[in-house]
Amino acid sequence: MSNFKKVHVENEPRKELHDVLDLTGSEISVNNLPAGAGIPFIHAHKENEEVYIILNGKGTMTVDGETFNLEPLDFIRISPAGERTIKASDNEPLEYVCIQTKENSLGNYTADDAIMIE
Amino acid sequence: MSNFKKVHVENEPRKELHDVLDLTGSEISVNNLPAGAGIPFIHAHKENEEVYIILNGKGTMTVDGETFNLEPLDFIRISPAGERTIKASDNEPLEYVCIQTKENSLGNYTADDAIMIE
Repeated sequence: MSNFKKVHVENEPRKELHDVLDLTGSEISVNNLPAGAGIPFIHAHKENEEVYIILNGKGTMTVDGETFNLEPLDFIRISPAGERTIKASDNEPLEYVCIQTKENSLGNYTADDAIMIE
Repeated sequence: MSNFKKVHVENEPRKELHDVLDLTGSEISVNNLPAGAGIPFIHAHKENEEVYIILNGKGTMTVDGETFNLEPLDFIRISPAGERTIKASDNEPLEYVCIQTKENSLGNYTADDAIMIE
């Protein structure tokens, strides 16, 4: 079996990659909110930490009642208990990635987990 | 303690976010390779699955001797054993995110892990 899998995602309202890429350590979604649109609910998580990566556009995020602006190349970590929602600006759509991982699941990483081949 | 942390990353050769964002389920790096430059080694991992997200530019990735092209919004999952390297094209820099998570660490996710607040 191949050690990798690749997909290209573009112009979809929401694409979930767990099954597409056979992910085992995360779920990753790619999301496009039209201008003025927002996720119509506030949610938290039981076990999962989320990281949002803003790819394009502008918007706002609210966590535990605190609202802040979003722009491309913003990275936001939210603990499971954080009560969150996200919204595109009124004038621009918002494209972002959301990564779910199990809180406290990472062991060693980078140099401590790497095997140098050549 | 706040349930979230935010950082903006731009124009840095490499930025590692684990300590910046207090990540516990992943390590995430943001990488910029100048045109013609590549990671000067091939590596694998002991325990960690990697997902690469291509943000800008063009380049190539090689896994287990197989080389393929990269463009923005490509998502690539690589199993720990995959022997990998990445290179920017000769004419364009390559900006990408690399996410490390522990293989098989994810439990429930999305609807099965969510708590609806309102």
